[in-house]
Amino acid sequence: MDQFFYASEIYDDKVILPEEEAHHALVVLRKHKGDPLQVVDGKGNLYNCILDSVDPENCNLHIIDKQEKYDAVKHYIHIGLSPPKSHDRVEWFVEKATEIGVQEITFIQTQHSERVMIKPKRILKRIIASMKQSLKATLPVINDIIPLSEFIEASEEENKFVGYLGEEDSPLLSKIANPGERYSVLIGPEGDYSPNEIAEVKDFGFKPVSLGRSRLRTETAGVATCHILNIINE
Amino acid sequence: MDQFFYASEIYDDKVILPEEEAHHALVVLRKHKGDPLQVVDGKGNLYNCILDSVDPENCNLHIIDKQEKYDAVKHYIHIGLSPPKSHDRVEWFVEKATEIGVQEITFIQTQHSERVMIKPKRILKRIIASMKQSLKATLPVINDIIPLSEFIEASEEENKFVGYLGEEDSPLLSKIANPGERYSVLIGPEGDYSPNEIAEVKDFGFKPVSLGRSRLRTETAGVATCHILNIINE
Repeated sequence: MDQFFYASEIYDDKVILPEEEAHHALVVLRKHKGDPLQVVDGKGNLYNCILDSVDPENCNLHIIDKQEKYDAVKHYIHIGLSPPKSHDRVEWFVEKATEIGVQEITFIQTQHSERVMIKPKRILKRIIASMKQSLKATLPVINDIIPLSEFIEASEEENKFVGYLGEEDSPLLSKIANPGERYSVLIGPEGDYSPNEIAEVKDFGFKPVSLGRSRLRTETAGVATCHILNIINE
Repeated sequence: MDQFFYASEIYDDKVILPEEEAHHALVVLRKHKGDPLQVVDGKGNLYNCILDSVDPENCNLHIIDKQEKYDAVKHYIHIGLSPPKSHDRVEWFVEKATEIGVQEITFIQTQHSERVMIKPKRILKRIIASMKQSLKATLPVINDIIPLSEFIEASEEENKFVGYLGEEDSPLLSKIANPGERYSVLIGPEGDYSPNEIAEVKDFGFKPVSLGRSRLRTETAGVATCHILNIINE
């Protein structure tokens, strides 16, 4: 089965694997000097490499070739999500969204949001594992919490949607999103948006959409949104 | 916000809430005698009730009316899934599948399956919470682990699909599944099916399908399958 390794230390012709990755390659998978390995950098590049050193603290590979924009897609999915109270559920959301496909995630603070401290190190670990697992070369951009108003003012995507429970006749996201475009989608808190907030969101051009007949938890709604937009773009 | 309670003890004209549900109604939500409550039984029935007793150990409601087949759908989704090693991921799968919509789940043992003991009590707890959360009245049927061959021999659904990684040109499930039908979908282990297994699965009429360009973990593939089939049936 295909297997990707992750490294951030990449030079002209060589890669140094981080200790955890080196351990996995050398101890778990028992790779030997001369074995081929595929390394991704989280920025869209895939490197075909050969293992030069089997020292886990200084695991060197030399680069044979580099494939740029390995997993490039034409569309761009940006999810603005009010984080659920449980950080486990936040981590689950970033893991599954990365696996299925997402380009950017911004956490947003709304009037009914839970008070959540986002843990960037844990999130980075989860998205690196997910990127490798799903054979991608690009990590999504993850932004820390900002107020809702800041998010909607800064959104420049051509498609702006808001998953809003308060309106029963919203069109299905799966029916109205077009392939190959840029999408900004807001996923609100369990307590939904306040009337003032939803009015402001609409003023900035966000169209209310439905994700289907089931009422979904916040993190499930975020993953379902990524999945719908990826299906449209298959 | 809408709120459902769950009970299994339902008589002609009254309902007794289980202790945990009673605690939630009386202590967390501070319901009083005479307050209306909506109760679901996991079998498709929704009961509109009035709270008669505020004793958490004997919390009685009387039934005003009963709505049968509250969340009935025309399609039927049966997922046969080789459980991932981590029971957390198994529980996550049943939770999210229930939220999004699934009628039956059977765990299957394949040659490359991890050895996993399914914990029915934990799973029941998760699917009850998910059913209430997503405002449904029906619990999916959850079957314990059976061998793959038993599953494929017993499958009588008109649409039989297998998520198989070994063939690159399989059609997308989202393109070939028709609405309003019965689907049986096999999701294999991380190590995929053995050549013998996939041959047998195909002999029994299961068509290989792709879930999209991303390689998904087993539990994510299970949830993505439920989601695709629900989108088709919206």
